[in-house]
Amino acid sequence: MLTLEVDLGERRYPIHVGADLLGRPDLLAGVLGGPQVLVVTNDTVGPLYLDRLRPALGNRKVEVMSIPDGEAHKTFDTWYGLLDRLVERRFSRDCTVVALGGGVVGDIAGFAAASYQRGVTFVQIPTTLLAQVDSSVGGKTAINHPLGKNLIGAFHQPACVIADIATLDTLGERELAAGFAEVVKYGAVCDRDFFDWLEANADAILARDRDALARTVHWSCAIKARVVAADEREAGERALLNFGHTFGHAIEAGLGFGTWLHGEAVAAGMCIAADLCVRTGLASAEEAQRLRALLARARLPTSAPARLGPERMRELMALDKKVRAGRIRLVLMRGLGSGLVSDDYDQGALDATLHECRDAA
Amino acid sequence: MLTLEVDLGERRYPIHVGADLLGRPDLLAGVLGGPQVLVVTNDTVGPLYLDRLRPALGNRKVEVMSIPDGEAHKTFDTWYGLLDRLVERRFSRDCTVVALGGGVVGDIAGFAAASYQRGVTFVQIPTTLLAQVDSSVGGKTAINHPLGKNLIGAFHQPACVIADIATLDTLGERELAAGFAEVVKYGAVCDRDFFDWLEANADAILARDRDALARTVHWSCAIKARVVAADEREAGERALLNFGHTFGHAIEAGLGFGTWLHGEAVAAGMCIAADLCVRTGLASAEEAQRLRALLARARLPTSAPARLGPERMRELMALDKKVRAGRIRLVLMRGLGSGLVSDDYDQGALDATLHECRDAA
Repeated sequence: MLTLEVDLGERRYPIHVGADLLGRPDLLAGVLGGPQVLVVTNDTVGPLYLDRLRPALGNRKVEVMSIPDGEAHKTFDTWYGLLDRLVERRFSRDCTVVALGGGVVGDIAGFAAASYQRGVTFVQIPTTLLAQVDSSVGGKTAINHPLGKNLIGAFHQPACVIADIATLDTLGERELAAGFAEVVKYGAVCDRDFFDWLEANADAILARDRDALARTVHWSCAIKARVVAADEREAGERALLNFGHTFGHAIEAGLGFGTWLHGEAVAAGMCIAADLCVRTGLASAEEAQRLRALLARARLPTSAPARLGPERMRELMALDKKVRAGRIRLVLMRGLGSGLVSDDYDQGALDATLHECRDAA
Repeated sequence: MLTLEVDLGERRYPIHVGADLLGRPDLLAGVLGGPQVLVVTNDTVGPLYLDRLRPALGNRKVEVMSIPDGEAHKTFDTWYGLLDRLVERRFSRDCTVVALGGGVVGDIAGFAAASYQRGVTFVQIPTTLLAQVDSSVGGKTAINHPLGKNLIGAFHQPACVIADIATLDTLGERELAAGFAEVVKYGAVCDRDFFDWLEANADAILARDRDALARTVHWSCAIKARVVAADEREAGERALLNFGHTFGHAIEAGLGFGTWLHGEAVAAGMCIAADLCVRTGLASAEEAQRLRALLARARLPTSAPARLGPERMRELMALDKKVRAGRIRLVLMRGLGSGLVSDDYDQGALDATLHECRDAA
């Protein structure tokens, strides 16, 4: 087992990474508050892993709430349902909310934990690669509003994260690859050594070798933790973690959300961003090619769909939160392993990139 | 104008106290973020003070949302209505939410500010004495659940508090007295000098002398700020601020919430607690008498209604959040000006107190 401390002063917490950690009471011993525990899971993950988790909770009074799977259920109603349960069962301020599932479960359970009695103890047990490398770190919790994703929420740090690599055994191929895209992102804009290591170990990772996966999750979390600790409220450096996301969101929105997985869109978005970096002299053609090749090994898309041409992409990108004074701010790669945020790039280069980085029609 | 800094490290903020501060742009100059401002007020306060506030907001895009007056409206629906407005008007993360009103407006607007886009800038402009001396400090925001008060919320510190004493001109007599009860509480368990000063100045305060009121609000906030800074998340000393509240809540619940104002019930609750302190040797009979006399000058009740006898009071008190392992924890006064929390007091003395401290039937 590998353990990493996310250093946020008073709110510091450990991330434990390894196989078969779910049922270990020692990891939760000092973390759970009073005797009341609400486990939030979904209809897919619950049946697979709830029984494995139970021994870790000892003889506490465990309440389980299973929510429907999928982003469409990350709503006000689902969140309110969790709060109703906590109130009806008279959970007190020293209770614990445990999220057992992917990003949706973590986001919604986290926001319930953040807002019940102004904040109770929260434990994350992410069961997808994406959730393990992304939502484990940073304390972001949220629900969607009909007019936009993640518009309502809170920063609420967990007391502990348990990333049990064994839960990835049951993850679908596409979901594994989508998580891998976010992993590659950390290498591309934050850590060249990690990128090199991913190139050398991609086969093992994608074959779900447990040691390789544990190392991947640990290294990714370490990078994100370093960035977040320096910028908890997302004022500066943390923006780098949006590499590929402005183009990616445009693709997701252009195709209709849910057509591509978020990680798939981010993969294509990173390749588009890398192409722009080559055109503007920030990265070499060889570096962009290495990025594309690594993502392609996970069968991830490396360009936008043919029908999303430059004009449509620009339209879609203009809706992004990062637009200031009409200029689209982009995260760019300054060679492999380092990034910057800029709205001062050549507009002609962007057009050329948007024109070229599409599938053949 | 008196200004006080609430020292919470990164989240430190000023409280400005004085007459006619509402319209001063200088107080908000460095506080408001981007150009979008949502002012939340209620149907009573808005018509009186919105126009006075406007000059302070300069040429910003100001959206006003007026909610119905009263605790009954501190609900999910009202809160969600505020979020809907923020989303529909495309307020961005650098917007500001301003609460102009009493505790209900502050709580609900504060929770909207805490949860919109995971937290935006919040400014409190409390317009009741209770809100000025109580909710101005501490960062508590909340809404009610049908099964209990303040069960859902967040800690979200304001960027600035403006306590405009002139807004107290329109406050009803009972509301002024209810706020005064909380003021007396600070003196009784936290600061003997303040208690002495209140005795000397009660007539001026209750006659709404502006200097006396400003001093009262400033001193109360300073005491609360000192306590909160030492104990932001309410683990220890902050519990002292619940002096009189366990008995008070029991009275409120026993009569039906809303029959007595919260401050009225707290006034009676403090007198009951003081009586217990005399019986257990923590305070002198003279000190308890001084407390009663000071509260009586504001025409506040100093005993429980006749029909709430010892048995019924004990039943009602047992529902309190502060019960641990069946023992009722009480905040007690150790002489005037200092307090302690204890569940180790003589049970016979409590019975005698509950029997005696009632109105004649």
